[in-house]
Amino acid sequence: MRLLFIGDIVGRPGRDIARRGVPGLIVDRQLDLVIANAENAAGGSGLTPEIYKELVAAGVDAITLGDHIYRRREIFPILQREENIVRPANLPDEAVGRSWATVKARNGSLVGVVSLLGQLYMKPIDSPFTAADRVLAEMPSDVKVRFVDFHAEATGEAQLLGRFLDGRVSAVLGTHTHVPTADETVFPGGTAFQCDVGMTGPFDSVIGRRIDRVLETRLTANPTAFDVATGDVRLSGSIVTIDDETGKATAIERICVREEELPALEAAAKRS
Amino acid sequence: MRLLFIGDIVGRPGRDIARRGVPGLIVDRQLDLVIANAENAAGGSGLTPEIYKELVAAGVDAITLGDHIYRRREIFPILQREENIVRPANLPDEAVGRSWATVKARNGSLVGVVSLLGQLYMKPIDSPFTAADRVLAEMPSDVKVRFVDFHAEATGEAQLLGRFLDGRVSAVLGTHTHVPTADETVFPGGTAFQCDVGMTGPFDSVIGRRIDRVLETRLTANPTAFDVATGDVRLSGSIVTIDDETGKATAIERICVREEELPALEAAAKRS
Amino acid sequence: MRLLFIGDIVGRPGRDIARRGVPGLIVDRQLDLVIANAENAAGGSGLTPEIYKELVAAGVDAITLGDHIYRRREIFPILQREENIVRPANLPDEAVGRSWATVKARNGSLVGVVSLLGQLYMKPIDSPFTAADRVLAEMPSDVKVRFVDFHAEATGEAQLLGRFLDGRVSAVLGTHTHVPTADETVFPGGTAFQCDVGMTGPFDSVIGRRIDRVLETRLTANPTAFDVATGDVRLSGSIVTIDDETGKATAIERICVREEELPALEAAAKRS
Amino acid sequence: MRLLFIGDIVGRPGRDIARRGVPGLIVDRQLDLVIANAENAAGGSGLTPEIYKELVAAGVDAITLGDHIYRRREIFPILQREENIVRPANLPDEAVGRSWATVKARNGSLVGVVSLLGQLYMKPIDSPFTAADRVLAEMPSDVKVRFVDFHAEATGEAQLLGRFLDGRVSAVLGTHTHVPTADETVFPGGTAFQCDVGMTGPFDSVIGRRIDRVLETRLTANPTAFDVATGDVRLSGSIVTIDDETGKATAIERICVREEELPALEAAAKRS
Ligand SMILES: [Fe+2]
Ligand SMILES: [Fe+2]
Ligand SMILES: [Fe+2]
Ligand SMILES: [Fe+2]
Ligand SMILES: [Fe+2]
Ligand SMILES: [Fe+2]
Ligand SMILES: [Fe+2]
Ligand SMILES: [Fe+2]
Repeated sequence: MRLLFIGDIVGRPGRDIARRGVPGLIVDRQLDLVIANAENAAGGSGLTPEIYKELVAAGVDAITLGDHIYRRREIFPILQREENIVRPANLPDEAVGRSWATVKARNGSLVGVVSLLGQLYMKPIDSPFTAADRVLAEMPSDVKVRFVDFHAEATGEAQLLGRFLDGRVSAVLGTHTHVPTADETVFPGGTAFQCDVGMTGPFDSVIGRRIDRVLETRLTANPTAFDVATGDVRLSGSIVTIDDETGKATAIERICVREEELPALEAAAKRS
Repeated sequence: MRLLFIGDIVGRPGRDIARRGVPGLIVDRQLDLVIANAENAAGGSGLTPEIYKELVAAGVDAITLGDHIYRRREIFPILQREENIVRPANLPDEAVGRSWATVKARNGSLVGVVSLLGQLYMKPIDSPFTAADRVLAEMPSDVKVRFVDFHAEATGEAQLLGRFLDGRVSAVLGTHTHVPTADETVFPGGTAFQCDVGMTGPFDSVIGRRIDRVLETRLTANPTAFDVATGDVRLSGSIVTIDDETGKATAIERICVREEELPALEAAAKRS
Repeated sequence: MRLLFIGDIVGRPGRDIARRGVPGLIVDRQLDLVIANAENAAGGSGLTPEIYKELVAAGVDAITLGDHIYRRREIFPILQREENIVRPANLPDEAVGRSWATVKARNGSLVGVVSLLGQLYMKPIDSPFTAADRVLAEMPSDVKVRFVDFHAEATGEAQLLGRFLDGRVSAVLGTHTHVPTADETVFPGGTAFQCDVGMTGPFDSVIGRRIDRVLETRLTANPTAFDVATGDVRLSGSIVTIDDETGKATAIERICVREEELPALEAAAKRS
Repeated sequence: MRLLFIGDIVGRPGRDIARRGVPGLIVDRQLDLVIANAENAAGGSGLTPEIYKELVAAGVDAITLGDHIYRRREIFPILQREENIVRPANLPDEAVGRSWATVKARNGSLVGVVSLLGQLYMKPIDSPFTAADRVLAEMPSDVKVRFVDFHAEATGEAQLLGRFLDGRVSAVLGTHTHVPTADETVFPGGTAFQCDVGMTGPFDSVIGRRIDRVLETRLTANPTAFDVATGDVRLSGSIVTIDDETGKATAIERICVREEELPALEAAAKRS
């Protein structure tokens, strides 16, 4: 199967390019499953029920989040009820949301979805290593294809978790830094890995926010509103090819869709 | 002119591939200047006079460092005396080493070299923004080509410094995370930018260190020796094309040289 | 002269005990000057013009702040205009507010007031050591009594700044942790020192906030409103005795005023 | 019963004052149990078997450690074998050492001993809240007197753990900052609490280290050897009075023993 993972969707620009681009990407790139990190989808921070539905309607099959997961409380019922959205598995047991999910891909395969938060340079949280062991043990053994979004700051921690899970999951792909890394690879055990798949939103920005605002605050200490930027919108992600029988990844390809490609993608979606 | 910047050289594997590869790259890629970050060159941390000389002999024209700069005290005389090696400019005034340097490229152009450390998720240090303003003002105005190595952890801080310096320097290229980012670009003002050019050393590792060691310490809290790894050695860097008259960058290209390419590079060097 | 420094005033409970207690303390403890840290005075974070005036009316002669200084933008005009309120001196030059002030004590002495922020475990900021050198050099040499509020997290950094300034200022007293330390002392050079003078606000709390709220968020990751608590309100601070001629401290005494002491203090204020 | 907890013993000066003072304190202050944090006992960092034995011989009944626990690997056999020394309970399961211990006090009561590390501003680690729940459940229910050393940086986290455990343990006393806090209290549920009991070692220092060395490194970035200081040695700790039947604390008293008090203490020890 072919699985597309879309990195942090930031604000309206990110949602727009995802909504317009995903249907065409499914056709054009022959995707069996689309997973997206939506932790910045609502105004740059958090997720709302409306946006959740908008993304699902656009063809996103499963949603992960990150450190901003609970910024908008209205998402709680979605996190409790819907079966295709997960919270980071290394949050406390009492945290709202499910710690893993399974979704059915277009080719019929079941895919396990896990989200984990990094510990380094992040808010205090339990070990993602221990949590990974736990949720992988909980998942039914017939779920061969297993996907992990590792939402982390430090490259060293991402690489270490990737190596730790090599051969046990189909892919460990990172989010949170909002910058795609050029290290996409398949590890010897068959796990696709990339430190960060990058951001889906305005690239004429500082990780999605208005440059002038962030710069003013940095240079003067005056607080400013870090509004979502608008220019040079792109969709970042990676496509992983996975053997459905073994769950092993055989290839990973980085993608970056720009606004000018949207008409062609929309035409492809219509044709199908 | 064409300038190659080589990311963090890690241990013997990193030095070996740099020493063997650089002469051929100069010929093959028509390089006018080679700058390298050598903060991890000595056993994974710091730099020694011998290694400094070895790198210069291989064709490295200027050297930058980072947070590990003073790990080996024997490098102090080199930092004080040599004119092609800089310390981070936002260290205290009293810190050993020069806060900027100029080196002459093969095409005759003078190139200013600056190193700055990030503040986010790093040890306490003064603002790289203020320090950049200061050293750029100190540099002779006829030095049009100006290079900045931003040794930083956080992507947001790297992008912000890049935007802050856009139009004022030829390139702001990052180091420290040891992972190349796929965001190389030339900003509107003519500054080449990339969050991180990546590591020069063993990629079968956790940012250059033995996987088994780092994993054991993470899983058990037992301290282990984080020895430099050995497998899958690569040279990471980026080549920036710069207009000598204006100092504006016109192109940036990411490179990743693997061991199997070394014989061809060595042959190219011999032919020249 | 005798100088009282009051630690972080938190919310309405903190303001109330300060307003009711300070006039009596001035009489009862023969105070020549009262300085207060008010960074948490407005609803637990920041300061407003009204609260500034309320504190000054109660007998607070000078005000310092901390990392929450700009949380309420309405304080900007006060920071720009009033001469008895300072911003941390190691914020950027462009930051709103003055980096030092002089106020006249009841005994006629001029007192220099400085605020500095720590670097360790705080948001990125320039060195408080360099900033201290700069502002002390700027202050008129006839200002012998000099007071420093060091708003910092780490005890090691506080002790180091205290030692660095020993003999150059009358006192280095800490704030920010909201817990008084039992290390008040006069260093050999004549500088009174204490890592933290503690909080003025509700002690039946987690550093001033409702216990149940902070605990729920910690245990479940659900965000809650960290409202200011209400029980067991105390005023924390320290009184430093200083030789007006030399600016040397001769004694430091920790104080903790509880609500039940207010009637006696109010009676003392009335009598005077 | 009366329990003395001694804060971080630093280097030879700390060991010396502990060895000379503890026997006399047991007599003079009628102590039933002495617990000490020894994470800095060996040259300022870590613990060795010899020092472990020296402290036990001096009358220390149980030993806790902290973030520096594994700095000296020779302590591993002691951690594995001895029954009166614990590792932080929120380290990974695989970490060397026991996660709780019981020791018999001089009055015959069994006392449970637990060590926990803070998460805020410390290296990544699992929640001390969850770990506390776990180890308290493991301890035999007839162990009524239960002691927790919370080795943490942030006052807010210390207060929160203290409140979380109020009524469930006899005392939550802090270590790690090396500065005693003036907040010792007994919470409503009967748990004695203090953010930090302070350091046992040289107070003419920066948290135990030579001032000149720490200052040079801070001002110049040059690395120096942070040797243990020598002047003004004190033993810091707190004595908790506990009802043996209920395990509830009834009183807590901060103590600070200076070198000049040692002769009297030694005489008291001899008389007994
Ligand atoms: Fe994030
Ligand atoms: Fe994000
Ligand atoms: Fe490095
Ligand atoms: Fe580095
Ligand atoms: Fe505060
Ligand atoms: Fe603060
Ligand atoms: Fe510690
Ligand atoms: Fe310690």
